[in-house]
Amino acid sequence: MQHIKFDLPSKLIFGKESFSKLIDECNFLNKRRIFILSIDPLKDFLVNQFSELSDKGVKLFIDTSINNEPTISDFQVILESARDFKADAVIGIGGGSVMDVAKLIAVMLTDFSDFSDYIGIDLIPNRETWLACLPTTSGTGSEVSPNSILMDDSDGGSKKGIISRWLVPDLAIIDPVLTLGVPSHITAFTGIDALTHCLEAYVNKYSHPIVDLYALEGIYLIAKSLKRAVDDGNDISARSDVSLGSMYGGMCLGPVNTAAVHALAYPLGSIFGVAHGISNAVLLPSIMKFNIPKSVSRYANIGRKLGADVSLSDEEAAFEGVKIIEKLITDCGLECNISQFGIENKDIELLSTEAMKVQRLLKNNPREMTFDDALSIYSSLI
Amino acid sequence: MQHIKFDLPSKLIFGKESFSKLIDECNFLNKRRIFILSIDPLKDFLVNQFSELSDKGVKLFIDTSINNEPTISDFQVILESARDFKADAVIGIGGGSVMDVAKLIAVMLTDFSDFSDYIGIDLIPNRETWLACLPTTSGTGSEVSPNSILMDDSDGGSKKGIISRWLVPDLAIIDPVLTLGVPSHITAFTGIDALTHCLEAYVNKYSHPIVDLYALEGIYLIAKSLKRAVDDGNDISARSDVSLGSMYGGMCLGPVNTAAVHALAYPLGSIFGVAHGISNAVLLPSIMKFNIPKSVSRYANIGRKLGADVSLSDEEAAFEGVKIIEKLITDCGLECNISQFGIENKDIELLSTEAMKVQRLLKNNPREMTFDDALSIYSSLI
Repeated sequence: MQHIKFDLPSKLIFGKESFSKLIDECNFLNKRRIFILSIDPLKDFLVNQFSELSDKGVKLFIDTSINNEPTISDFQVILESARDFKADAVIGIGGGSVMDVAKLIAVMLTDFSDFSDYIGIDLIPNRETWLACLPTTSGTGSEVSPNSILMDDSDGGSKKGIISRWLVPDLAIIDPVLTLGVPSHITAFTGIDALTHCLEAYVNKYSHPIVDLYALEGIYLIAKSLKRAVDDGNDISARSDVSLGSMYGGMCLGPVNTAAVHALAYPLGSIFGVAHGISNAVLLPSIMKFNIPKSVSRYANIGRKLGADVSLSDEEAAFEGVKIIEKLITDCGLECNISQFGIENKDIELLSTEAMKVQRLLKNNPREMTFDDALSIYSSLI
Repeated sequence: MQHIKFDLPSKLIFGKESFSKLIDECNFLNKRRIFILSIDPLKDFLVNQFSELSDKGVKLFIDTSINNEPTISDFQVILESARDFKADAVIGIGGGSVMDVAKLIAVMLTDFSDFSDYIGIDLIPNRETWLACLPTTSGTGSEVSPNSILMDDSDGGSKKGIISRWLVPDLAIIDPVLTLGVPSHITAFTGIDALTHCLEAYVNKYSHPIVDLYALEGIYLIAKSLKRAVDDGNDISARSDVSLGSMYGGMCLGPVNTAAVHALAYPLGSIFGVAHGISNAVLLPSIMKFNIPKSVSRYANIGRKLGADVSLSDEEAAFEGVKIIEKLITDCGLECNISQFGIENKDIELLSTEAMKVQRLLKNNPREMTFDDALSIYSSLI
């Protein structure tokens, strides 16, 4: 069993209506100037929930300016607000974009270095400000992961990843109630994103028994309940399963990370503006099939965890797993083709060239993925 | 799904030869005065491993004075040494006793309150000193748990429990290599202690799906590999499984904790001086059988995880699980009776009276355990 390292929130709370623990924790830790990055629809709820603290003189600053995938410029503007406010706590309550920015704000609040020096892996030296994250979608697992991703608006929108132990929040609260209002379509593709985190961690060159435990359970929970959460956004039991699966996916991101699905998905986002979860959903079954020859027993475990008959051979169980995932994706209203985004055969070469640049993830893939392999996978999805 | 709260090490490292990461971490965090609580046989190894830092002027203080279950007086003496040394980091490298004391030293180093005020649950207000724990036995899971236990020498040796988020180390490193030297008999009973943590968390009134995941995996790993670790202390693969199982057991202690096995085991220790793990081993199968009528499906899951045939009914699978655990205990050289400690029928009433005082654990038991039930269980073990 090789080494494995987890950077974890020092406090992790999961469960329906656990939001109130955030107020308890701010109170317990005597936070006086709380900077909250969130989303517009939650603003009144937050003011109301924090009123107990506001009445005691605690100052709140609620910023809801992030509406799309955040750029480095967006981040710099919000950082200035947080610095002017002299925050002693930073809280991100939203989807992956909101949490990713909150995590970076907490790091840079008292650190006046050049932010671009921190793009990459393990380059941040410290974080002085207390940080909490609460997801309102079930997808990125950013509430427990060491990753933040921003779009670089100085170079036309490439994604810049920052990975650091200091980006793991001190407190993560996963309250499935916060996800009840997420529209069906977003529930679908964020859920498939979370499923992909688990799948790519489980079938990974660097897989590890501790990560396997989270990954396989995450795959099971999301496959079991995502369709129900898509069909009825108020099904709290389904929302709980998917929230937990998403959290498990986030736990896998630090120690093992993703592989070829994410590598081939990125150019769909950066060139054609396809939402990240949708890009993953489109590619997932094809890349599972591509990988099976190199990881048949792992895919068989997935197939069996998802209900493949025990009488099936490993190979049959592996392909049965792909079928179950394919059905889940279409049942959730997503399509496994790239023509829906206006992508044509002439675009495939550029997509493949860009995908090959994501070697930091391709190196994790159980089967080597060449330029020609990428070409062939994209072509099959036209 | 009810709320659940985990207090976690912010960095958790697992794996063979991961000890060296401790040096990297002390270096990265620029620790200059490191107080290490450990055991005599490791002293030379530690001096050698830390020489890279000593050469850079880092000061070490290695205390190896804990040889038995530590008393509050032992703790006070060591605390004075750590204060005089002006430590900026506290590291516990040893079994549960060593780690439990190291955890409390880190809390009290800069806190001059009366220690007795902190006995109980969640009474410690803060910890200022960085704390790391590395287990050299696979049993208590103290490296990831919020618990410390000391013997009160002012009242004849009762166990005093301190439970607090601040007792969870900042860094936990589980390196199975550190357990290679543990003698066979100690491997056996510490391993059964860890198994009991997992079992009592899985079949518990407050069980929770997140804890279930750890608990069932811990049961599986320990049941699979403990005998091998007992038979051949150098079997690193078996040691790894048991170390990981023990860590999972520790993860269960904070959010769910143990139940009747621990409650009935404590008086065997406090009155008859029986080692904690042995007390658990003696009681475990009888209390599993006692509980089955109230938790048949959970015990059936355990039985099946341990290899019970799929054709068995729930009840049959549950009892098959007990048989497998009973066999494991005897295969490891332990006996399921209390006469081996010189306990006679006349002692049973006192034992039962004392066990009934451990209501904080008895309340977790899936089946109510009365004084008469305790009497009957102890009697059956004479």
